[in-house]
Amino acid sequence: MAGLSFQALPGFRDFTPRECSVRNYLFETWRSVARRCGYVEYESPVLEDTGLYLKKSGGELSSQLFRFEDQGGRDVTLRPEVTASLARLVAEHQRQFPKPIKWFEIGQCFRYEKPQKGRGREFHQFNVDILGEAGPAADAELISLAIETMLAFGFVKGDFVVRASDRNAWISFASTHGVSDEAMPDFLNIVDKIEREKPEALEQKLAAFGLTTAQVRAFIADPANASPAYLAIKEDLTARGLGEFIELDLSIVRGLAYYTGVVFEVFDSKKSMRAVAGGGRYDTLVATISDGSVDLPATGFAMGDYVIRNLIEETPHANILMQAWLQRNSANCDVYVVLADDSKRAEALKLVTDLRRAGVSTDHPLVPAKVARQFQSAERCGARFALVVGAEFPELKLKILSSRTEETGTAENAAAWLTERLQQPDGPLLA
Amino acid sequence: MAGLSFQALPGFRDFTPRECSVRNYLFETWRSVARRCGYVEYESPVLEDTGLYLKKSGGELSSQLFRFEDQGGRDVTLRPEVTASLARLVAEHQRQFPKPIKWFEIGQCFRYEKPQKGRGREFHQFNVDILGEAGPAADAELISLAIETMLAFGFVKGDFVVRASDRNAWISFASTHGVSDEAMPDFLNIVDKIEREKPEALEQKLAAFGLTTAQVRAFIADPANASPAYLAIKEDLTARGLGEFIELDLSIVRGLAYYTGVVFEVFDSKKSMRAVAGGGRYDTLVATISDGSVDLPATGFAMGDYVIRNLIEETPHANILMQAWLQRNSANCDVYVVLADDSKRAEALKLVTDLRRAGVSTDHPLVPAKVARQFQSAERCGARFALVVGAEFPELKLKILSSRTEETGTAENAAAWLTERLQQPDGPLLA
Repeated sequence: MAGLSFQALPGFRDFTPRECSVRNYLFETWRSVARRCGYVEYESPVLEDTGLYLKKSGGELSSQLFRFEDQGGRDVTLRPEVTASLARLVAEHQRQFPKPIKWFEIGQCFRYEKPQKGRGREFHQFNVDILGEAGPAADAELISLAIETMLAFGFVKGDFVVRASDRNAWISFASTHGVSDEAMPDFLNIVDKIEREKPEALEQKLAAFGLTTAQVRAFIADPANASPAYLAIKEDLTARGLGEFIELDLSIVRGLAYYTGVVFEVFDSKKSMRAVAGGGRYDTLVATISDGSVDLPATGFAMGDYVIRNLIEETPHANILMQAWLQRNSANCDVYVVLADDSKRAEALKLVTDLRRAGVSTDHPLVPAKVARQFQSAERCGARFALVVGAEFPELKLKILSSRTEETGTAENAAAWLTERLQQPDGPLLA
Repeated sequence: MAGLSFQALPGFRDFTPRECSVRNYLFETWRSVARRCGYVEYESPVLEDTGLYLKKSGGELSSQLFRFEDQGGRDVTLRPEVTASLARLVAEHQRQFPKPIKWFEIGQCFRYEKPQKGRGREFHQFNVDILGEAGPAADAELISLAIETMLAFGFVKGDFVVRASDRNAWISFASTHGVSDEAMPDFLNIVDKIEREKPEALEQKLAAFGLTTAQVRAFIADPANASPAYLAIKEDLTARGLGEFIELDLSIVRGLAYYTGVVFEVFDSKKSMRAVAGGGRYDTLVATISDGSVDLPATGFAMGDYVIRNLIEETPHANILMQAWLQRNSANCDVYVVLADDSKRAEALKLVTDLRRAGVSTDHPLVPAKVARQFQSAERCGARFALVVGAEFPELKLKILSSRTEETGTAENAAAWLTERLQQPDGPLLA
């Protein structure tokens, strides 16, 4: 903006009240779905030892770090994701908690990428994990939460789908075709990029493993290659009435090196097939992070705030829920005290204090102003009621701003009166 | 911890569920008090252009920065406080908002200091500001929120006090004694450290300004030196019934260079006289940050999470409120579904889904387990109810865990039944 010397860094957002309210809608929905599904909240540090990320993530993440040396000479990094921290934290504290551990975190992450629509250099992530249970029931429980989250945002069948695969199916296929354990990560990386790779390059890369594109595509296309874990998850979700939201897609492998079994992504099925969330099993990560001192199977997923917000805004039946929530939460206050007689300022201040103390969101003019101007302020800040303090104090007039009706009451019982009045709907608009 | 290769960085906290819940108690209290007083939430970026902090804060902050060069060669800093960001954000967006702007933010800040009790290298801060109103009514409105926040945490008269001063009173005193405008910041810095400075050194430093310690102490001790702004604030707070919580203390100047008028600190008056919160007027900061393109008077304060938490824990009548909140929010779920007959697993999964969808926080065993073990899990996760699915499904038994009583119902209406049941208190304990 012209004339302003400072701006937010590229890819970083200023959450003005409207943007902050959208953020709060996402956070509150995430939090409430996680809690009703029996997950408890934790939070790991925003800044960690860089080694934590270099040790586990692999892949492109390590080139996108906000990494620096702190004043004590430590090599530190703003977290690009939270699973590594979770593994560290669980390894240290797990004895205190009965298994399975069902935890969630809503936190900000940082990646140095090219800012674009749907991607910044910081983003908030909803992370959900189950640790201590190796069987597919844990994956199904986790995936059911991903689905319930989408439903809570107002999405319906046809808007999204969970596409699931199993790295073990790939490992078994590749082993059968002579791919060694050491070569497996490279092989999985090629499969992960299969849709983005040029056909000739793909054929060449697969040839190095003694495989052809046709063989790999045939493997992906055959539903008989669904793993027993996938089938158990599908059955579990079907029992929950959620079977229609999951389908097999063996082309999904996930980029991070630490995944070990079932992996999945939640896709926007309407439009651009963006991944809204993704996750899977990482049974060896806790042991890796803790140098083998703690061994806990685990499965988890993350959902970022950029894509889900865009998807909500593009989907009318989801957007209407968000807009209604934003509308309900847009007022600066419920009651605006109008001071019609400035000699009653002290009485008005006491009244404001009493109302606030009773939990009624209340505001008032800080300096004397014409009554019409004060009513304007009341409207602007979204108040339902203007409570008029005038010469007749302690008698008060209550103007219902939407219906332009009026009631009278007294200052002594204002807190009870307004508390009760806020529970009731407003009357019809009087012309 | 032995055997674990990674730990949190010094001064950084792992918020395990219990710690996260304490954090949430502070956040929810801050947020609810701010909202009922008519403030709206915003959030500024965690990472900013370093120049933003060098330009405004002055003093020791600039030596405590987590400052580094990002991959694009920018000089960036993890925010040590949020007022500079707020000023930047308001300068850019203020035209959209009617004045006064009443905003709050709850966010994490970072300072490279020696970690000790009551101080880490990261902390959460409740920041509250009023912009666009220059008169003392805005300061009184702001200070009333600081007081209401303390009262909401359960503190009472005698636990804390707001000590207020006015830099303008000091400036007028110093000018009268020949201190030049240019020397004023240095003079105020000496006054700020008056209690920590050795007597001889203090005498010597003041002598450089042509003043004696006796003169300065006499100024502090004389209530006649209260500024008109202080007196107006005191009168305003008295009208609100909060006059007893504020007192004049001219020894308060505040360390940051940007303060311009009334400054104040909330003190723990019981024990160690720690500052729980602090703030004041900064009428020129928005203009400074925006190179003069926007000029808005402003007043604000910040409260960190470390000191307030310690003070709550040391104050029985405040601690009991927090402990009760933590107790109410400690359960992983309200209802634990016990599977007495594993052939009914599919039915149980459907039931769990229905309950969750109805907003009932529900958990269940992921794998078959003995019934006694499942009841143990129900107790451990803090559930009020165990809902038993057995051979008699769709008939269900509901065990009230605290009173060891029992009810029966059916799966079809379980959501309505449990929703209603959760509203009621449990019966007396049966032996």
